[in-house]
Amino acid sequence: MASSAWILVLYVAALTVTSVGAAANKQAERNCSLTPPYLPSTTVNTSLQLQQLREQMQSLRITAYIIPGTDAHLSEYIASRDARLAFITGFTGSAGTAVVTQSKAVLWTDSRYWVQAERQMDCNWELEKDASISSVAEWLMSELPPGSPVSFDPFLFSLETYQHYASYLESSSLHLEPKAVNPVDVVWEDRPPLSSESIFRLPDRVINRSWQMKVQEIRNLMMEDLNKPTALLLSALDETAWLFNLRGNDIPYNPFFYSYTLLTLNEIWLFVHTERVTKDVEEYLTAHCSDPLCVQLKPYDSVLQDLRTYVGQPGVKVWIGTEYTNYALYEIIPQEKMITSTYSPVLTSKAVKDQTEEQVLRDAHVRDAVAVIQLLMWLEKAVPQGNETELSAAEYVNKCRSKQKDNRGPSFETISASGANAALAHYSPSVETNRRLTVDEMYLVDSGGQYLDGTTDITRTVHWGTPTPMQKEAFTRVLMGNIEISRTVFPSGTRGVNIEMLGRRALWEVGLNYGHGTGHGVGNYFGVHEWPVGFQTNNIPFRVGMFTSIEPGYYKENDFGIRIEDIAVTVPAQTKYGNNYLTFDTVSLVPYDRKLIDIALLSSEQLQWLNNYYMTIRQLVGPELVKQGLHEENDWMLKNTDPFPEFGSSASICSSSLTLIALAVTLFHSVD
Amino acid sequence: MASSAWILVLYVAALTVTSVGAAANKQAERNCSLTPPYLPSTTVNTSLQLQQLREQMQSLRITAYIIPGTDAHLSEYIASRDARLAFITGFTGSAGTAVVTQSKAVLWTDSRYWVQAERQMDCNWELEKDASISSVAEWLMSELPPGSPVSFDPFLFSLETYQHYASYLESSSLHLEPKAVNPVDVVWEDRPPLSSESIFRLPDRVINRSWQMKVQEIRNLMMEDLNKPTALLLSALDETAWLFNLRGNDIPYNPFFYSYTLLTLNEIWLFVHTERVTKDVEEYLTAHCSDPLCVQLKPYDSVLQDLRTYVGQPGVKVWIGTEYTNYALYEIIPQEKMITSTYSPVLTSKAVKDQTEEQVLRDAHVRDAVAVIQLLMWLEKAVPQGNETELSAAEYVNKCRSKQKDNRGPSFETISASGANAALAHYSPSVETNRRLTVDEMYLVDSGGQYLDGTTDITRTVHWGTPTPMQKEAFTRVLMGNIEISRTVFPSGTRGVNIEMLGRRALWEVGLNYGHGTGHGVGNYFGVHEWPVGFQTNNIPFRVGMFTSIEPGYYKENDFGIRIEDIAVTVPAQTKYGNNYLTFDTVSLVPYDRKLIDIALLSSEQLQWLNNYYMTIRQLVGPELVKQGLHEENDWMLKNTDPFPEFGSSASICSSSLTLIALAVTLFHSVD
Repeated sequence: MASSAWILVLYVAALTVTSVGAAANKQAERNCSLTPPYLPSTTVNTSLQLQQLREQMQSLRITAYIIPGTDAHLSEYIASRDARLAFITGFTGSAGTAVVTQSKAVLWTDSRYWVQAERQMDCNWELEKDASISSVAEWLMSELPPGSPVSFDPFLFSLETYQHYASYLESSSLHLEPKAVNPVDVVWEDRPPLSSESIFRLPDRVINRSWQMKVQEIRNLMMEDLNKPTALLLSALDETAWLFNLRGNDIPYNPFFYSYTLLTLNEIWLFVHTERVTKDVEEYLTAHCSDPLCVQLKPYDSVLQDLRTYVGQPGVKVWIGTEYTNYALYEIIPQEKMITSTYSPVLTSKAVKDQTEEQVLRDAHVRDAVAVIQLLMWLEKAVPQGNETELSAAEYVNKCRSKQKDNRGPSFETISASGANAALAHYSPSVETNRRLTVDEMYLVDSGGQYLDGTTDITRTVHWGTPTPMQKEAFTRVLMGNIEISRTVFPSGTRGVNIEMLGRRALWEVGLNYGHGTGHGVGNYFGVHEWPVGFQTNNIPFRVGMFTSIEPGYYKENDFGIRIEDIAVTVPAQTKYGNNYLTFDTVSLVPYDRKLIDIALLSSEQLQWLNNYYMTIRQLVGPELVKQGLHEENDWMLKNTDPFPEFGSSASICSSSLTLIALAVTLFHSVD
Repeated sequence: MASSAWILVLYVAALTVTSVGAAANKQAERNCSLTPPYLPSTTVNTSLQLQQLREQMQSLRITAYIIPGTDAHLSEYIASRDARLAFITGFTGSAGTAVVTQSKAVLWTDSRYWVQAERQMDCNWELEKDASISSVAEWLMSELPPGSPVSFDPFLFSLETYQHYASYLESSSLHLEPKAVNPVDVVWEDRPPLSSESIFRLPDRVINRSWQMKVQEIRNLMMEDLNKPTALLLSALDETAWLFNLRGNDIPYNPFFYSYTLLTLNEIWLFVHTERVTKDVEEYLTAHCSDPLCVQLKPYDSVLQDLRTYVGQPGVKVWIGTEYTNYALYEIIPQEKMITSTYSPVLTSKAVKDQTEEQVLRDAHVRDAVAVIQLLMWLEKAVPQGNETELSAAEYVNKCRSKQKDNRGPSFETISASGANAALAHYSPSVETNRRLTVDEMYLVDSGGQYLDGTTDITRTVHWGTPTPMQKEAFTRVLMGNIEISRTVFPSGTRGVNIEMLGRRALWEVGLNYGHGTGHGVGNYFGVHEWPVGFQTNNIPFRVGMFTSIEPGYYKENDFGIRIEDIAVTVPAQTKYGNNYLTFDTVSLVPYDRKLIDIALLSSEQLQWLNNYYMTIRQLVGPELVKQGLHEENDWMLKNTDPFPEFGSSASICSSSLTLIALAVTLFHSVD
């Protein structure tokens, strides 16, 4: 899962998860009501930067300034040099928005981060707990006199973010005011520099389509489009990376490089920090420069000016995706020369993997399973000795992954959480919160790897002692949710949001639920949350060849947390009467903790699915373990994928079966 | 279900249903490729009205004119005087849009109506089969030179319709142009007059909240709203009818009267044809005229002018619901004086029934069940004699309903469909298509009644002979879908669209599906499709006290159609761990055709639900049948609600049970 914005669909539900941490870690939180206020060692003194920012705001005539936690590409994960929100607030969580006026400074973040915010912010800052745009807008409406301007950096707002704010603010007479100069950057003296690492090519063995083929594909889609676009503007970092089969290291855990692309029907403009383009890559992009297949490298910072020049010409029409295009680019394209869709054709094409992409992504998951199996087996032995912690476990699984072929590090900060810590859906261990692992607590590990051939993301929850009946029931119902989605059959083109409830239904039946989304796309050596695939309202319909995570969970405040996450690919389903139906094929290949499964709750269909899945693990991971000489791990895997007895699979079935036995017995007795 | 717009969610799927009719009724369709063209007797000659319309368009400088099939209140069902689409095209279906230019005339309608359109339209008209706004817009873009105006009657476009067209047309340089004068009305000489029937009050026995209480409720919601509205504008006919506990007869099957309401914090303006307000009703509205609870009656046609006057004042803010406010009203409210939400607070309040409304609506369904049971029993006896038809059956059930207390006629045109006719999801019998009922065909009857205390809508599908295995499997899977939705437990606030797939899942498993929505709201003596409750994307989340239909189906082209429709109310669910969970309680009380149920396919939970439901029918409908002296019907009901055996409920369970018996047997033999 990894901490992220995608999870906010079920924001309200998320609230229930919240107070957990709050309860669990009060002592470590600031208390501004005391005099003097109590500030834990983890808080950052923001007085100076706030004072400097307010001076800048005055000279720039800014009444209220909105500071989002993203970059110019609306990235979910950002480089340190884009961590403006952290610099000004002290809060380092991955999701939040700050607003600063001359008299007040407020941070909005969601339930996952309330505890962290209370630990990191000093008393210059207020915390608002409804992270929705409407809540920020309402605060602005209540604080500012009518007619006030509300300023923002147009590079840090997506078109949709802008429109949301605008629609809320229009009713009061506040007006949004983009500012070319970002006052935070002005006062940020020791802002980290750009990464100097060069951009690199993907090895041919993981590629089916050359960048030239992809460019042709996208141009065909442009030509087929009824609105007759003459150009496509790519702003999301994975759009350009995908199109050219290139990667970089500008952002932790994400193999991206700062870039924009303007793809016209006969030209290709790649906006990038040219000094980081090696000779090799330059040749690769310009080799067969029989335009229109010639990439023109342009300075990253010239994008505004060059786009302005382009749209200045008569008869041009630029196609932009509204989810990832920032307002600065949007506002220089005249309405009549703009074509919008939620996602660019690059993002929707990228979502469907070709045969090579699907195969290498499956392969990466086999090697990834080896690392997770190594971790689980090791913990089973090490934990009872009492020396392991959340941090040491995280370190161990990262080490295991690093030894796997083509690994390029973790795909996000490993979530290694024991007991109450796991009740915080997005907890990552730190020195202050690190918890010793014991046989008396449940343990949740959510981790993933970047490999040249694919990105992985898997969560397992285990118990090394004796789980309570409630823990066992909750785990089993989470597993039932995972299985119900995985085994369901649906027409091609069904939206994830329309089948997502299958992941919750077994929990709902007993009044349990979870406060986060149920799945997100993954890709080939890309961000661990690859849009636009998944189970949310704004995800695109499922087609054959899309990869998504399936990750229901349950979190008991101040007690324990359960999540079972697998990656699955949509494959054709054979049905009795129909064609064009799909189902999921799970590509994460690690057994679940048997001790936590109450098979009496499973339907016979669920049990059957589970046994088939375990058979697949044996077939695919077994040989890899042996090949790597991990024989003890292989035995552990075999033991943990032992088939479950398949008859009498659900409570009701058992009872009715027993009735039948009873019947039979009486019958035979009477016969004797 | 009734033919309607709500059903279009699954437009694409719906396409599959279509060709049926086409295939089934070719001979009755026009053929414009012949010379002379073949025109069936059912076609309307539209040459004259088209010629006159085009003359008007020229004098009004209209290049292209869009003619929707609705009225100024965006009603789903319309009065004959608003049937402009039918007047100009000859097509009488309930959904469609026409566009007329000097050279062309085109109708867009969805799959339900293609056959009907081909039967009713002459060769002046082209038929476009993608009824989406984008398809109309694309046609306009391809036909008109850039810069052309596209005209429409601002009273017949909702704000959302306008915005959809605008967003499509903006990319080409066509622009939308509202025209105060409707050229269709100008040339429509014998346009039907207004209904002269007077408006009437609901009897106190079916009311809990007086109109004064409702007005106070809504004003409280206005005062709580952060945007601080000073007025609420009500445009949908059921908004005003609900607010004042009034009804009328302006629209067939719908107890509405033409009206608007402007509700301010201290005034109430009711725009209505005042000559139709009786002394009694006038007193009822003005009795305790200690304003702010005094209704000021204003002429229906003065709404524009009075609204303009109101918004001319400083500091006012008008709240409108974008789904039902027409563009004519919208465009006179300045942006900064407008507050929008999809639905008005009246519609969202109305969606949750109070205790009285819930009880009387349940009562109406008990009496309605009597009428449907009378029909089904009668058909069982009459059909084998070979003299009954779709029309005579429709007549019979309407007669049965008319005898029930407080009945005010059917709530929509009865769908009485045998064999292939039922494969057209929205077929209603006509003299040309009327089919004799036989023991060799499946029969579908979808009908409902208007009662002073409630509106009903129920569908049953039966077979009087021997169904094929496929018919039995399809029926059972449709029933499984109905049951799965009805019995599911979900958190309060869940959207219908998120659980709708439960109605399809059993069909999807074998590659079957249906091309329409899964349910819509109903209310207390209102339209049979009461927004905004239901299972579509634009429906509101479920809360306790909402009524919705649940109506999965399956349609086999040119062969048969199955639909099982019940009305259910959302009620609190008791769960093991949680609070605030809901489930459905079915209030339609008519048994399903046992002959068509394959209980081996049902899970034990489904079977249990079915038996409980049948017990409820016995408890609630039995006494009513007896009270009405319908003893034969009571016996029929008892026979058809006989409990099903509850063990060995699903295939897999049977097999595993049999395995057990076998085991037991062997065991005992070896013992002997």
